[in-house]
Amino acid sequence: MKKLSEFQLIDQLKRFQGRSPRVIKGIGDDAAVLELDARRYQLFTTDMIVEGVHFLKGAAPRAIGHKALACNISDIAAMGGVPSFAVVSIGIPRGLSAGYVQRIYAGMSALAKKFGVSIVGGDTVKSDRLVINIALLGEVEKKHLVLRSGARPGDRIFVTGPLGGSLKSGRHLAFIPRVREARFLVKNFKPTSMLDISDGLAGDLGHILKAGNVGAVIDADRVPLNQGADFAAALADGEDFELLFSLPSEKARKLIQCGHQRSGFRFCEIGEIIGSPKKLFVRDVDGRRRMIEPKGFTHF
Amino acid sequence: MKKLSEFQLIDQLKRFQGRSPRVIKGIGDDAAVLELDARRYQLFTTDMIVEGVHFLKGAAPRAIGHKALACNISDIAAMGGVPSFAVVSIGIPRGLSAGYVQRIYAGMSALAKKFGVSIVGGDTVKSDRLVINIALLGEVEKKHLVLRSGARPGDRIFVTGPLGGSLKSGRHLAFIPRVREARFLVKNFKPTSMLDISDGLAGDLGHILKAGNVGAVIDADRVPLNQGADFAAALADGEDFELLFSLPSEKARKLIQCGHQRSGFRFCEIGEIIGSPKKLFVRDVDGRRRMIEPKGFTHF
Repeated sequence: MKKLSEFQLIDQLKRFQGRSPRVIKGIGDDAAVLELDARRYQLFTTDMIVEGVHFLKGAAPRAIGHKALACNISDIAAMGGVPSFAVVSIGIPRGLSAGYVQRIYAGMSALAKKFGVSIVGGDTVKSDRLVINIALLGEVEKKHLVLRSGARPGDRIFVTGPLGGSLKSGRHLAFIPRVREARFLVKNFKPTSMLDISDGLAGDLGHILKAGNVGAVIDADRVPLNQGADFAAALADGEDFELLFSLPSEKARKLIQCGHQRSGFRFCEIGEIIGSPKKLFVRDVDGRRRMIEPKGFTHF
Repeated sequence: MKKLSEFQLIDQLKRFQGRSPRVIKGIGDDAAVLELDARRYQLFTTDMIVEGVHFLKGAAPRAIGHKALACNISDIAAMGGVPSFAVVSIGIPRGLSAGYVQRIYAGMSALAKKFGVSIVGGDTVKSDRLVINIALLGEVEKKHLVLRSGARPGDRIFVTGPLGGSLKSGRHLAFIPRVREARFLVKNFKPTSMLDISDGLAGDLGHILKAGNVGAVIDADRVPLNQGADFAAALADGEDFELLFSLPSEKARKLIQCGHQRSGFRFCEIGEIIGSPKKLFVRDVDGRRRMIEPKGFTHF
């Protein structure tokens, strides 16, 4: 039997995807992009989280509910959009208390309220381990859509916040999806590419490089780190759910000059897009470049 | 710890659902109904199936993929709509072969093609048991939307095909969702209520009675049965995925007179809506009525 990787599986699913003319972008970005009306696209995404894989058995149920929705909202943010409607499936082990499930819903619901998401449906089934799947719709103005694929040599690379150590610190259960940051960016600076960091900086930047057929250089000392995390953790830990995006150099200058004051957000420039397809380099403090694998954490 | 039922859980989730003015119908029907444009609503539904609960470990992977999508398509049919876009999450046990997963996708994809569904996204995660969640969008013209709640005393009750024994016979893995039947009905006869039979005739008719605050009498000898199934099986087995709907008596007469020839479908009249709220009666061949519980199979 062959060992399966998540990416191989997604590639398999790609072969089976439909080809409706209303599908602007199918499998292979943070969310699917569907024709909606003259002005807007609809976004559609889904995430499944499983006990023992994405959270431990002892995790607070409110935090589990929060995370289940937050990763979906993060996918919508990564396209430049705003989330709208969600359906929630939950597989529940026998013996779980009604109060426990209620606290899962409460965590989900608090976040939904914060981001204007309406939970409109669901399915509840029996399962031996707790598993939650959320599918989320969103919308984006056509002019504001950002895909993974538009990065061009010379573009500067940014992140919306510090990376690394998300699993160890428990931040992966409590992160706030970067919808506001994304909306500020698409309205004022129009990134050439964007995604949310779920597999670690190296792997997710790898997606941008592959989609745009470009390369990148990261300046090791400019990557913002969470307390207790080092550069290696930022590259590989995953589940940071900060946005990673690229901007043409002139817009990058403007963002640095005035973006922070105008928005109240912190955007950190961490490197540059280059021409060499799919090549990822790290530049150390002394200016030496070394090539690294554009691979991050895999949930498989 | 309190024991949980599926219906209690759905009721819990209801308490947390959003209240956007764009939500025409949230939790509590076969699919959510969302404002789309002047002419149409968008439909949104989700179903999770778990190994050992909705299919056994030895089931054919193509059939598993088929079923995962078919129950969702059936929900869209039950609203009178047509399905459009799906996202697929799959939790995969270690050691499952690439070919196995491919056959799941192939089963899904064949059905998707048949009903014009585009698979546009997905998530693949590690799980100890195979679990598949699909979320499906659909559309329905506003004038053709059918909810569970519109049945009125005097309406006749119909099903689209024989009931009972679906699990034993394996039909629950191979059923064809009744989209074409539903479309024929909403365009020509406009049912007053409709849903798909997943929990058994008694339980699902119970949903129509509760939603419409009406009662019903079923004629035991008129309920079409699958080979090897008896009336008790039709009432309680579930997973038939035939449509159950009500029509005003005059339209019912027309459907019986000419609907079959025009459509090529078989619609079976099985009883009548009455005024007594939530009361369900069975009328035997000799005309005697007995009251039964409007409860069917529960997956919990």
